[in-house]
Amino acid sequence: MISLKGKRIAVVGSGAVGCYYGGMLAHGGHDVRFLMRSDLDTVRRDGLVIHTKGEVVRLPQVAAYATPEEIGVVDVVIIALKTTANSDLERLLPPLIGPETTLLTLQNGLGNEEFLSARWGAGRVTGALCFVCINRTAPGVIHHLDHGTISIGEFGRPVSERVNAVAAAFNAVNVVAHAVDNLAGERWRKLLWNIPFNGLSIAARANVAEVLADSGLRNLARSLMDEGLDAARRLGHDIPDEFADWQIDRSHSMGPYRSSSMLDFEAGRPVEVEAIWGEPLRQGIKAGASMPRLDALYRVISHLVARGLGKS
Amino acid sequence: MISLKGKRIAVVGSGAVGCYYGGMLAHGGHDVRFLMRSDLDTVRRDGLVIHTKGEVVRLPQVAAYATPEEIGVVDVVIIALKTTANSDLERLLPPLIGPETTLLTLQNGLGNEEFLSARWGAGRVTGALCFVCINRTAPGVIHHLDHGTISIGEFGRPVSERVNAVAAAFNAVNVVAHAVDNLAGERWRKLLWNIPFNGLSIAARANVAEVLADSGLRNLARSLMDEGLDAARRLGHDIPDEFADWQIDRSHSMGPYRSSSMLDFEAGRPVEVEAIWGEPLRQGIKAGASMPRLDALYRVISHLVARGLGKS
Repeated sequence: MISLKGKRIAVVGSGAVGCYYGGMLAHGGHDVRFLMRSDLDTVRRDGLVIHTKGEVVRLPQVAAYATPEEIGVVDVVIIALKTTANSDLERLLPPLIGPETTLLTLQNGLGNEEFLSARWGAGRVTGALCFVCINRTAPGVIHHLDHGTISIGEFGRPVSERVNAVAAAFNAVNVVAHAVDNLAGERWRKLLWNIPFNGLSIAARANVAEVLADSGLRNLARSLMDEGLDAARRLGHDIPDEFADWQIDRSHSMGPYRSSSMLDFEAGRPVEVEAIWGEPLRQGIKAGASMPRLDALYRVISHLVARGLGKS
Repeated sequence: MISLKGKRIAVVGSGAVGCYYGGMLAHGGHDVRFLMRSDLDTVRRDGLVIHTKGEVVRLPQVAAYATPEEIGVVDVVIIALKTTANSDLERLLPPLIGPETTLLTLQNGLGNEEFLSARWGAGRVTGALCFVCINRTAPGVIHHLDHGTISIGEFGRPVSERVNAVAAAFNAVNVVAHAVDNLAGERWRKLLWNIPFNGLSIAARANVAEVLADSGLRNLARSLMDEGLDAARRLGHDIPDEFADWQIDRSHSMGPYRSSSMLDFEAGRPVEVEAIWGEPLRQGIKAGASMPRLDALYRVISHLVARGLGKS
């Protein structure tokens, strides 16, 4: 695949991320078919509206479907389901997958490429990290607030033609996309921030500014990063020492930012506990890393989330 | 001091613990003077009532005082103030202390004997651990629910005459008292339970049964015990391997017990964070122990308590 031109693309998990990235590809003229549930009727009638960087992208005609069988086999499946619903993919993906179908997971954390590979073969699996602040404010209405960069790579392989093709399609509609050689390494870099900051937003109920203002929590965040850094390196990802300092430094400009995990926790929605804390812990331990602080954080968060203790 | 007979005893911190142990000594005929605040008028008028093991101990005449100056110098000061109020002792103790005065702290956790020694000399410091379930249900009314054993020792010295004298005075009124050679070791044994179970009651909002029912939390509790065990041994306290297993086993019979820390946290009262988690961490680290899980727990609890996040 040297271009997405003329290719059929399905989006599974049409929340804010799926609608934004899928919608921008549709805006670029691609054949994008959205699998939808709650927003189906509204989007079929009114289409999608994406507010992005002061601009409004209107897609009055959107191919929205209720079942994967209606969509049929496609060339690329963009997976933007919450990782807590991964088991649904066993039912949703098979009708979309033919011999040449590429899977592209935009999901958070670790373990998603592995999940897809185990079921549908590693050769078709690619993934991406989305650095984006985005909200679905109403059915079919997406507000893209900030950032938006996407880093796309093969699962365990260097950049390929198809990865370059997907990146090019995004760049053509002003979504900054990078093709990356080490997708897993990029996931670890992102997790080095998510593990402490999303984690302490649940365990200590502290937003980013509160973590940074409390020297005990700030040092704990840094220690959690160091544990992750050691694990990532044992797994073969070359991340420099300065990365952790840079991650802490850049956090100061975020102010009282409340992580998506914190918002999910407080709203009683599923929290991506395994993708953000459980799987990094398991991969790190397996690689011989010592991660006692992550272990403690993971156990506490698991309990708080399982018991639904975030609602006030 | 070979007996408490004829000795003047002051009780500073006349909550449930102070009133129970001081009250039982008064019941045994000793000269016990209570420093009181909120309960002063009621106790002066009505005395103390202690419901203990199906029996009611009535002390119609109680020596209750509003200031330490009115009490004056005594032979023994029983300190039962919450550790979070230790700084008040700088003001409350001096009027009670003469050249021969013994200090006996019944307070929780670590650091209290050190606090008293640094200010008034190690030679006068003794301490005790109270294994007791006790409530103050109204001004001057104490309900002793269960247990009640007290272990009394010198600070950093083996059992002495005065420690035996205090123990004998308690045993004479059916409060089971042991004189112990290694007070600090006993404190660590108690903390090996309090650190995980009181700690997870705040960080994970889990009562004892909930910690034991969640394999992640149960394993974390056990790992926290192992960290404490290593620290205690480095500090010279000989605690056998089986102790941690025994602590977990005996917890099963406690059911959905809610620790005093959990009750304090949820009621918005001060929580003894430094005595239970901070000081053990500092002493352990100083002795060369690695306590990363306790470190994480301490930082999270400190933030939750400082922000008053326990009230629902």
